[in-house]
Amino acid sequence: MSSTFIKNARIATANEHGDFVHVDATEMLLKDGKIYAMGNNLTVEAETTVDANGQWCLPGFIDCHTHLVYGGNRANEFSQRLTGVSYETISKQGGGIKNTVRATRALDEDSLLTQTLRRAKRLAEEGVTTVEIKSGYGLDKETEIRMLNVAQKVGELANLNIQRTFLGAHALPPDSELSAEEYIDFVCQTMIPYVAEHQLADAVDVFCERVGFNLAQTERVFMAAKQSNLRVKGHVEQLSDSKGAALAAKYHALSVDHIEYLAQGDVPLLAEAGTVAVLLPGAFYFLKETQLPPIETLRKYKVPMAVSTDMNPGTSPIASLLTCTNMACVLFGLTTSEALTGITAHAAKALGLTRKGIIKEGFDADVCLWDIGSPDSLVYEINGYRPTAKWIGGKRVL
Amino acid sequence: MSSTFIKNARIATANEHGDFVHVDATEMLLKDGKIYAMGNNLTVEAETTVDANGQWCLPGFIDCHTHLVYGGNRANEFSQRLTGVSYETISKQGGGIKNTVRATRALDEDSLLTQTLRRAKRLAEEGVTTVEIKSGYGLDKETEIRMLNVAQKVGELANLNIQRTFLGAHALPPDSELSAEEYIDFVCQTMIPYVAEHQLADAVDVFCERVGFNLAQTERVFMAAKQSNLRVKGHVEQLSDSKGAALAAKYHALSVDHIEYLAQGDVPLLAEAGTVAVLLPGAFYFLKETQLPPIETLRKYKVPMAVSTDMNPGTSPIASLLTCTNMACVLFGLTTSEALTGITAHAAKALGLTRKGIIKEGFDADVCLWDIGSPDSLVYEINGYRPTAKWIGGKRVL
Ligand SMILES: [Zn+2]
Ligand SMILES: [Zn+2]
Repeated sequence: MSSTFIKNARIATANEHGDFVHVDATEMLLKDGKIYAMGNNLTVEAETTVDANGQWCLPGFIDCHTHLVYGGNRANEFSQRLTGVSYETISKQGGGIKNTVRATRALDEDSLLTQTLRRAKRLAEEGVTTVEIKSGYGLDKETEIRMLNVAQKVGELANLNIQRTFLGAHALPPDSELSAEEYIDFVCQTMIPYVAEHQLADAVDVFCERVGFNLAQTERVFMAAKQSNLRVKGHVEQLSDSKGAALAAKYHALSVDHIEYLAQGDVPLLAEAGTVAVLLPGAFYFLKETQLPPIETLRKYKVPMAVSTDMNPGTSPIASLLTCTNMACVLFGLTTSEALTGITAHAAKALGLTRKGIIKEGFDADVCLWDIGSPDSLVYEINGYRPTAKWIGGKRVL
Repeated sequence: MSSTFIKNARIATANEHGDFVHVDATEMLLKDGKIYAMGNNLTVEAETTVDANGQWCLPGFIDCHTHLVYGGNRANEFSQRLTGVSYETISKQGGGIKNTVRATRALDEDSLLTQTLRRAKRLAEEGVTTVEIKSGYGLDKETEIRMLNVAQKVGELANLNIQRTFLGAHALPPDSELSAEEYIDFVCQTMIPYVAEHQLADAVDVFCERVGFNLAQTERVFMAAKQSNLRVKGHVEQLSDSKGAALAAKYHALSVDHIEYLAQGDVPLLAEAGTVAVLLPGAFYFLKETQLPPIETLRKYKVPMAVSTDMNPGTSPIASLLTCTNMACVLFGLTTSEALTGITAHAAKALGLTRKGIIKEGFDADVCLWDIGSPDSLVYEINGYRPTAKWIGGKRVL
């Protein structure tokens, strides 16, 4: 594997306190896929030397919560809603998630891959190097597996590290005669063991909500995941305080995601469990939500906060992680430092990736160069910048 | 000049009612810079034929209100505000518009051009073909002229039609000893005649607001513009109902911009004057404004509504017109049809461009091809799409 020496860079990354800071190093050796050495006035041999000329070098960004693989889109529903058509009417027409499940099931692997690649490319263009992708629009064995296979291929074709999450418990299959309990039986007894055995996913997720699955059903999924040695995470407290976060903490979930309605009293449980709070301001924006996640309390208990797009066709059709960092600041009041750590170090933690998201010796060589005045600029200006160079696992891809 | 025949396209544009519709034509001949003919089964001769293969053909988008030319950025202030530093403190440190005026004055034409080109490119990448650019960060003769010259060059280098607006009455120069009245004397007696004589701008704009210029000062600027045969437009009712819109209507302004605090009773005046209401949801979002513009009343009186970025370093650092159409829908409740007409036909009207923004025989051949399911998709998905081909004045630029 090739080695690259980057010099004259201004390097910024999250420190051990989670602050995104300019570090005292201007040089970096990428070798064997890793950040092999960093410092000043290094004596190294490398096949390639890149003079950053004072540009900033940041960790590749990590979008830790997406539903990037799906068929069709819901532009027509978006349009209809704005002309006053009610959600009920749209649902009766077969709209909502049913629409996406139908469109996803109808596509073969190649077509699904083509549609997904466009979105993946948009994320990658803005400096993203790792994307988590969930299943959950198949809701049957065949399509859920197809989604996870497509997720894997997207990574290969778009030069992205992919983490896959099985979200069979996203919704009840629209055309099924199964009760919620029976469907959860299928998820726990058939799907999770299959996904684990064939290494189709790295974690298991559940939509725990009044309109999703209840607490007992969520716990069954978490237990099944545990039996299959898969980590868990949860869509929790998005629309109501359903106590999904506390349950997730009990299972040492990697992350709890959305959490606008998270009770302040449950925050210490997340801190104890080492669970990351994943903030999804795009969905908050798109749904015109007004309930803010308990940011101050999360800070107080030092719960790591990540920021992600939640890219999905129904509630967050936003193929820009940097736009979501801006929304996290403007709408949720995060600082720019928190937002940048939220798409690097803390996003890695939300995926259980212990060697990504930080520029540090021994970590994966996923880095970008940026011609910017300061890292804050990326959060501040929407659609402002593109990286000028990018390496993934030490391999130059831009 | 070359001629191009586009076939098998799905063509959408605003109709005479302002609805953005799929029209009954699949073919178009671009010739002499114009849409020379359109229809079905045309018999034409053209040097080049492009098979759109069912892709959509839309008018090039028009960003009718930007402050694209400026030096520096205000990322640091954005950051500081989020850590709790007050606006007053930042202002005392020389922040706010003073910061941008200082940075803009400090740059020579080449440096200003380089910084502006990056932003222009971001707009152009999303299908924008015409951009209005205001002066207003020089606030002295030399820098205001430099800004307008740079605006012109940006158009040549980024393949964009540029409309220039003189906004000398943006703010009182920070280091000046002039009173507001004296500065307005300078704007009216020195600058406007100079700008008109040298054809440096197509219109004159004023920031009419408690923190800008008052109604009497605004009227003096409008009168001076009229004497120099320049059209006028106004930043009005952004922070308060200052009656700037009514005054603008009296001077048959091309547009009134922002208008969150526009009184419903003043809306008929806009309709009578043929003045366009320019909505700037990016600034609304960025400032966390809660007062909505009177959309229903504007609809009732059939005042044309345009949508624009207001791209500027202080209150709307958003280099994406399509993101702003999404915000117009999500935050202001516009329909997707209104949003698309708002960045095409109505945006052209806001600039007094009678041959742009519509796909129609005799209009300028500024069009893009898009590989999308429907035009709504562009409004619905943030950062989703890029045009696959683009012509400006009949010349292919992508
Ligand atoms: Zn989600
Ligand atoms: Zn403005």
